[in-house]
Amino acid sequence: MRFAARVEVQLRPGIADPEGATIERALPALGFDGVAHMRAGRSFSFEVDAPDEGAARRKATELADRLLANPVIEQSRLELEAL
Amino acid sequence: MRFAARVEVQLRPGIADPEGATIERALPALGFDGVAHMRAGRSFSFEVDAPDEGAARRKATELADRLLANPVIEQSRLELEAL
Repeated sequence: MRFAARVEVQLRPGIADPEGATIERALPALGFDGVAHMRAGRSFSFEVDAPDEGAARRKATELADRLLANPVIEQSRLELEAL
Repeated sequence: MRFAARVEVQLRPGIADPEGATIERALPALGFDGVAHMRAGRSFSFEVDAPDEGAARRKATELADRLLANPVIEQSRLELEAL
């Protein structure tokens, strides 16, 4: 079976995020009020071949934690969908 | 009302993605087989104050298209959730 995976990698809460802070500071001057807690991160989408959803989830989670995120300062979130 | 917004920005299909291609090429040597169509992008999460969900969606969509993505080569996807 083939699954579509989507991994979102963001800095853990408490880790400074200069990119998000810079965007947030610029927003009022650009006409956007009422926006808070801006955090910037990375996202990855890919397709996984696996015999079932559990195996696909294990493979995608290991891939995310070993190669896409730095678990010391980042957390990843996985969404999986059968194709 | 306050809404949690999550914006995912990815290159449009057909636009070359060297980062995704490099990750995908490295995977077999790192023990990950059966992974294809790797695409790299960026993600942003933030909170929006707005009178209702429609207004929050309009504000977040405009913010994404004007400031977070380059609509010429990138597409953005918005998820909104009431807090």
